[in-house]
Amino acid sequence: MAAIDLNADLGEGFGVWRLGDDDAMLGIVTSANVACGFHAGDPAGLLRVCRSAAERGVRIGAQVSYRDLAGFGRRYIDVAHDDLVADVVYQIGALQAIAAASGSAVCYVKPHGALYNTIVTDRDQGAAVAEAVRLVDPALPVLGMAGSAFFDEAARLGLRTVAEAFADRAYRPDGQLVSRREPGAVLRDPAEIAERVATMVTSRRVTAVDGTQIDVTVESVCVHGDSPGAVQIATAVRDRLAAAGADVRAFC
Amino acid sequence: MAAIDLNADLGEGFGVWRLGDDDAMLGIVTSANVACGFHAGDPAGLLRVCRSAAERGVRIGAQVSYRDLAGFGRRYIDVAHDDLVADVVYQIGALQAIAAASGSAVCYVKPHGALYNTIVTDRDQGAAVAEAVRLVDPALPVLGMAGSAFFDEAARLGLRTVAEAFADRAYRPDGQLVSRREPGAVLRDPAEIAERVATMVTSRRVTAVDGTQIDVTVESVCVHGDSPGAVQIATAVRDRLAAAGADVRAFC
Amino acid sequence: MAAIDLNADLGEGFGVWRLGDDDAMLGIVTSANVACGFHAGDPAGLLRVCRSAAERGVRIGAQVSYRDLAGFGRRYIDVAHDDLVADVVYQIGALQAIAAASGSAVCYVKPHGALYNTIVTDRDQGAAVAEAVRLVDPALPVLGMAGSAFFDEAARLGLRTVAEAFADRAYRPDGQLVSRREPGAVLRDPAEIAERVATMVTSRRVTAVDGTQIDVTVESVCVHGDSPGAVQIATAVRDRLAAAGADVRAFC
Amino acid sequence: MAAIDLNADLGEGFGVWRLGDDDAMLGIVTSANVACGFHAGDPAGLLRVCRSAAERGVRIGAQVSYRDLAGFGRRYIDVAHDDLVADVVYQIGALQAIAAASGSAVCYVKPHGALYNTIVTDRDQGAAVAEAVRLVDPALPVLGMAGSAFFDEAARLGLRTVAEAFADRAYRPDGQLVSRREPGAVLRDPAEIAERVATMVTSRRVTAVDGTQIDVTVESVCVHGDSPGAVQIATAVRDRLAAAGADVRAFC
Repeated sequence: MAAIDLNADLGEGFGVWRLGDDDAMLGIVTSANVACGFHAGDPAGLLRVCRSAAERGVRIGAQVSYRDLAGFGRRYIDVAHDDLVADVVYQIGALQAIAAASGSAVCYVKPHGALYNTIVTDRDQGAAVAEAVRLVDPALPVLGMAGSAFFDEAARLGLRTVAEAFADRAYRPDGQLVSRREPGAVLRDPAEIAERVATMVTSRRVTAVDGTQIDVTVESVCVHGDSPGAVQIATAVRDRLAAAGADVRAFC
Repeated sequence: MAAIDLNADLGEGFGVWRLGDDDAMLGIVTSANVACGFHAGDPAGLLRVCRSAAERGVRIGAQVSYRDLAGFGRRYIDVAHDDLVADVVYQIGALQAIAAASGSAVCYVKPHGALYNTIVTDRDQGAAVAEAVRLVDPALPVLGMAGSAFFDEAARLGLRTVAEAFADRAYRPDGQLVSRREPGAVLRDPAEIAERVATMVTSRRVTAVDGTQIDVTVESVCVHGDSPGAVQIATAVRDRLAAAGADVRAFC
Repeated sequence: MAAIDLNADLGEGFGVWRLGDDDAMLGIVTSANVACGFHAGDPAGLLRVCRSAAERGVRIGAQVSYRDLAGFGRRYIDVAHDDLVADVVYQIGALQAIAAASGSAVCYVKPHGALYNTIVTDRDQGAAVAEAVRLVDPALPVLGMAGSAFFDEAARLGLRTVAEAFADRAYRPDGQLVSRREPGAVLRDPAEIAERVATMVTSRRVTAVDGTQIDVTVESVCVHGDSPGAVQIATAVRDRLAAAGADVRAFC
Repeated sequence: MAAIDLNADLGEGFGVWRLGDDDAMLGIVTSANVACGFHAGDPAGLLRVCRSAAERGVRIGAQVSYRDLAGFGRRYIDVAHDDLVADVVYQIGALQAIAAASGSAVCYVKPHGALYNTIVTDRDQGAAVAEAVRLVDPALPVLGMAGSAFFDEAARLGLRTVAEAFADRAYRPDGQLVSRREPGAVLRDPAEIAERVATMVTSRRVTAVDGTQIDVTVESVCVHGDSPGAVQIATAVRDRLAAAGADVRAFC
């Protein structure tokens, strides 16, 4: 029986502003990628979501980002290596204390948004993120994309890499995601998405956009919670995995 | 022989902007109150100062503040209790990771600027800061003003309180500082300041502005490093304490 | 027939975060208090709301605030006089350019949140806001509370003051608002609120919490749009004023 | 007799932090590129420098930037077109009000740092900056690099473009600057720099790094003021231009 983790982004409001339905998602996922204040997440909001996660036994990961509240961390920034190392160390530490104050702990790190996308191929920034994790705690696993430059660099530093698949995204034959700008990049039908995830988890294969079957490495599945439809999809994925006999539990 | 700590604020630049002579001060003080990013301190600059402190055996404290880069944390902000707790937890954690990445650790907490001044008398905000320290690590001492509401609240939560005296400030007969707005509030002569500190440390007494002798509780002396004259004063204080046979070393 | 303006706060999102239903409110109010980036409002969002306001003939006011994104401008900050003057000048100018780029113009200034509340009584900060408006354009009216220190200072500088009433708030016998912390401070029933506003506008009197009738000066009525219920209330107010024969139009 | 403008970046502190010697530079240059708050410049500091500029008859330009205080605007950010338009509109407007409050006006726009460098070649961002200027005031000239994509787009929108040369930078044979990462990119000797500028202004030619003579378009010369040596260089340039009979005056 395959073990599988479900992760989602949480704590992505700021002050009075809210985003997504954190409460609903904490009833579905096993790992919460909690914002760290650089793209979203005021400390009081982070403390609330970490306390809720701790109460429900959901694991907490540090969702590190470029410093970009105005752009929600979705814009590439040409940050120098040493600055990025320090920015990521700072964010992990901030969330570690918030998690500790909640009676829990940060047990993995996942890059967010443009940083996530950049270090699929940008070796220098990927190395900076990996170096930051190692400096804080070499026992912290990193959650990300199999085959990424980031995973190469993380592995080189001895970090555990945990590969995730995306529930609602189309794949290219090379295993990368179809760009959001292309038609068909994002899947919408809950039943189809759930079925697809179950296949990925049980057979470690997925059908790419050209119809070919490709191998996927997947220890965790990323779901979203920032719309009513997204919560419904996440629920369908969780239910379908349970029906398939998968052991849905956190990887850390 | 009296043991005494010397502390100063460090890491108070931001990005390209620098403030004070951190290198000079790290050769003088035993404890560095390092900014945490809310009133000053970009992560890369914090990492640099923590690494220097670690190399020189200077202890690191988290200098927590209101969120106020534009005002350098010098303006009172009416922050709600729970928000202040979370803000302080976040800052301590951020610096803990930076210190860990430097091969050191945060070993105390000291409030900065307007927050420092406010919680001399504001019980609610003082309790919030104390609660934050306790949530992160109840073994962390707090550095501050003897007789403050903050110290009351910290002691009530079981935190160790470490009282500091100010090398270059005049005292009122009630043991509080003369406001900076009043004449004579700040002392300027290095020899006079050094002599005064030596007396405080060895006799636990200081002459108030009205000429009376008052008792002072002092485990640490606060010196400044944000001007050439300030560095000269700090040096004079350190040298005079050594000459008086004081054991100048960190309290943690 | 009494002329009356309806104003509401708009453009109070930031980046991905939204707050309130700006589109609905632009169909109801005659004056939009648009955020200026200090408590809310990223430039692109401000440009969108100003363009919508311009298209619909809704007047634009600069809703100036303390610099406090994390606290949405709802926390008092002890800003020095000269700093507050400059902060307010900066914000008005930023929105003037956004409005100009939208084919419209800033035609009044209204303080937001904690700044609004503070300068009801704080003469120094009130004078700073008034001075800022005068420096930018002495022909700009200010929208606020009759009897406030701010209005005194604004009048002293020759600014036109436009008094507003609050549709959904209870009044004390002295004409000030009942604090939100007290029971009954906020009215909830749309029909009751609409009736009350109509009476205020036509008779210039309102019933205070102790049952006495008090005089109100009112050239504008403030309504809110940050919840579905709020939009319904605003609609009820507008409809009731029209039914009462009031001439609902902008004051500038 | 050739007319020539001298420009420098000013107002680039933030809160307690200062950068460069604004007072010295205001005695040398004819045009001040004043920061607008996105890479540097708190409103009170901007008001001070604009007042000084106004008193001395130095023209004020809006030095617009990416939103990046932590990186001083020196890092490329992949800002979407519409967001960049709005960001630049906002900044120009903010400084217009500050300048108006100083009894002066913004009379040109100059991009800063990474934005400046990016739009030498990035047509989309260059068009966004040009569009922003046009939206605020089509009569505002833009100061920048001859031959840049930005100037193409600005000219296409009918804006006046004012080409600047860099006093202390080496040129490639194609008229672009030698990258700061290459040796010899920055000149250091005041006399050599002053002589070189005088030649550029009087003969409209400069010697490139490969020894060839290239044509330069130059209505303004950019000098720096962020070090004692820089102020000395700026003085030497100004004096040498006067000696050469150039008419040193603002272009607007």
